[in-house]
Amino acid sequence: MKKSDGGFSDFDRACMRRAFALARRGQGKTSPNPLVGAVVARRGRIIGEGWHERYGGPHAEARAIAAASCAGRNPAGADLYCTLEPCCFVSPEKHQPPCTGLIIQNGIRRVVVANTDPHPGVNGRGLSLLREAGIEVENGLLAGWGEDLNRGFFTWHRIGRPYIHIKIAQTLDGKIAAPGGKDRQITDGAARKIVHRLRARYDAVLIGRGTAAADDPELTVRLAAGRDPFRVVLDSRLRLPLSAKLLALPEREKTLIVCCASADPEKMRKILQGGSQVIALEGGGQGGLPLRAALAALGGRGIRSVLVEGGEKIFSSFLREGLWDRLSVFLAPLILGGGKPAISRLGRDSLSQALRPQNITIKRIGNQILFEGENVYRNY
Amino acid sequence: MKKSDGGFSDFDRACMRRAFALARRGQGKTSPNPLVGAVVARRGRIIGEGWHERYGGPHAEARAIAAASCAGRNPAGADLYCTLEPCCFVSPEKHQPPCTGLIIQNGIRRVVVANTDPHPGVNGRGLSLLREAGIEVENGLLAGWGEDLNRGFFTWHRIGRPYIHIKIAQTLDGKIAAPGGKDRQITDGAARKIVHRLRARYDAVLIGRGTAAADDPELTVRLAAGRDPFRVVLDSRLRLPLSAKLLALPEREKTLIVCCASADPEKMRKILQGGSQVIALEGGGQGGLPLRAALAALGGRGIRSVLVEGGEKIFSSFLREGLWDRLSVFLAPLILGGGKPAISRLGRDSLSQALRPQNITIKRIGNQILFEGENVYRNY
Repeated sequence: MKKSDGGFSDFDRACMRRAFALARRGQGKTSPNPLVGAVVARRGRIIGEGWHERYGGPHAEARAIAAASCAGRNPAGADLYCTLEPCCFVSPEKHQPPCTGLIIQNGIRRVVVANTDPHPGVNGRGLSLLREAGIEVENGLLAGWGEDLNRGFFTWHRIGRPYIHIKIAQTLDGKIAAPGGKDRQITDGAARKIVHRLRARYDAVLIGRGTAAADDPELTVRLAAGRDPFRVVLDSRLRLPLSAKLLALPEREKTLIVCCASADPEKMRKILQGGSQVIALEGGGQGGLPLRAALAALGGRGIRSVLVEGGEKIFSSFLREGLWDRLSVFLAPLILGGGKPAISRLGRDSLSQALRPQNITIKRIGNQILFEGENVYRNY
Repeated sequence: MKKSDGGFSDFDRACMRRAFALARRGQGKTSPNPLVGAVVARRGRIIGEGWHERYGGPHAEARAIAAASCAGRNPAGADLYCTLEPCCFVSPEKHQPPCTGLIIQNGIRRVVVANTDPHPGVNGRGLSLLREAGIEVENGLLAGWGEDLNRGFFTWHRIGRPYIHIKIAQTLDGKIAAPGGKDRQITDGAARKIVHRLRARYDAVLIGRGTAAADDPELTVRLAAGRDPFRVVLDSRLRLPLSAKLLALPEREKTLIVCCASADPEKMRKILQGGSQVIALEGGGQGGLPLRAALAALGGRGIRSVLVEGGEKIFSSFLREGLWDRLSVFLAPLILGGGKPAISRLGRDSLSQALRPQNITIKRIGNQILFEGENVYRNY
């Protein structure tokens, strides 16, 4: 079989690509578990496929092996391609048996994975167990794809907070709203479609109280396929009007208002009665909510990835505190001069201190620019 | 001969392209005259070439016809391709005889031009004279190239002011300087090279007093080939320090300080003694210099095109008053938060009133973006 670089054959690559395609089918349904896809193959042919369909459901490996068996194709002696290291532990919170046992029992000859599972209960132990059972194990095929597919999951297990993607839609001169402040659709339909696709990928969309009041947004996925993410409003003093659309959406339990513990208990009660959720945090002084505590609380509810959509105060706080992983700036071909800036003081007084996103991509979307970059300086 | 769309043959196009290549050789040397190139051709072969080399020198048509004759190739019965309508008048300020006479005398059979000459002394009369003499005349071949080549010349004759190109180098969040304000090199060498190429194309570079004081720039062409443009500083109260580099450059007569007539006469005298020029304007109240009067005064000195390089007050004034034709914004992949904005209040209070550059181009230069657009709403 033809081997290309990295020691993997073209067939290996094709199988892993297929496993990723399968994994993506679970998008929006598996969190806080990762998306995983698996393929069983023998003699250059795929004989079983599976993916993690939803949180609590069977794992991709188990489904792929079962699919092969059900079709009368014995998985013994076959190769298993899996986008993530197979799990190897049991715990009260875990709904499924360890996949490593299943793989060994079924006589799989070779296991190829994209990444080690960063979950503290796995983290390389799954691969070790397989090797000890005499199975040939290879790691790192399309590893970048794996990192990209489960950004939130990896970030959570590595640095203990959700993956944070900041999305800004601004004019060429960096404004997110005109001085009058009424009309706020800076970008056009093509750009908004991309934003809706992003929303479908993230566990939660987060905005500040000011944006919630000014725009009264729904933060749902309408211009793309996919489920609605959680909707998080940071609202230290719980001043969001009870008439806000976010409190009246069909799945209103997906709206989370994060406030200080000192906020009006009566208002809190009314929001809870309406069916939405309130997270009350201790601490947080003049400057509003303690961001890290807010993110930890979201993580505690299974939110592993957050799309931050505004406004100025929120963008500035997250950037100032280094709480971001990816930044997408949509630049509309407009100049306002005055108006609300996207970002205010960051405490950076010289160009050498400026924030410098890395791994930059620049795309043209109609007459708009989409600038994207990553924070590679975040602490692990 | 094969005819392509527009009624012109491929050979016609090739000859006109050649004429444009010749015209460009005069770049930076012909203003306030336009760049012009000409080609004489017969039976599918070019027999003479010429271009307008410098202000006051022979015209392109005359040189092309003379070149043919000198090489022993009779221009009688040949075709003449000319990037601009041949001139047809004499005046005390004009150094050369009318080209129409020369073309007729030499028995040219057909004349093809890109554009009508907007000069009030020509403006279609040149082509009429040729037609009356029985010469076949065609207009409009590569007309867009012609407009582009002589932006300043066309703008001057159409709307009575120089062509204005605004160039901004800013961070992603629209800042042209950090709060500290010391280091001001927002863009990298590749972007600055493009700026120097632009400078070589324009008759003058213009900045405000604030930028002149803060950056102490030279505004010369160093990173590209070409001659230095005039350097214009708008400095209503003549507060530019006498130690400024702009007042000490080798060709210091190319530095023009535009001030109010009420500015310190002693300072004015010192600048003039140093060899630089001062333009003192009547009028101009609180808001500084009257921009239109300043542009008219520059036009009076033969300046037909201006590259506006900063800073905030200058950018904002030109944009606010609609005094711009082209805008180039270099966006560096940096975020400052605080600092000096590129553009301040423009009196536009809603998105529908925002400035919307048209005919947009977006280029990636390393990790920077170059956004360019035109003002198509200017008054003719």
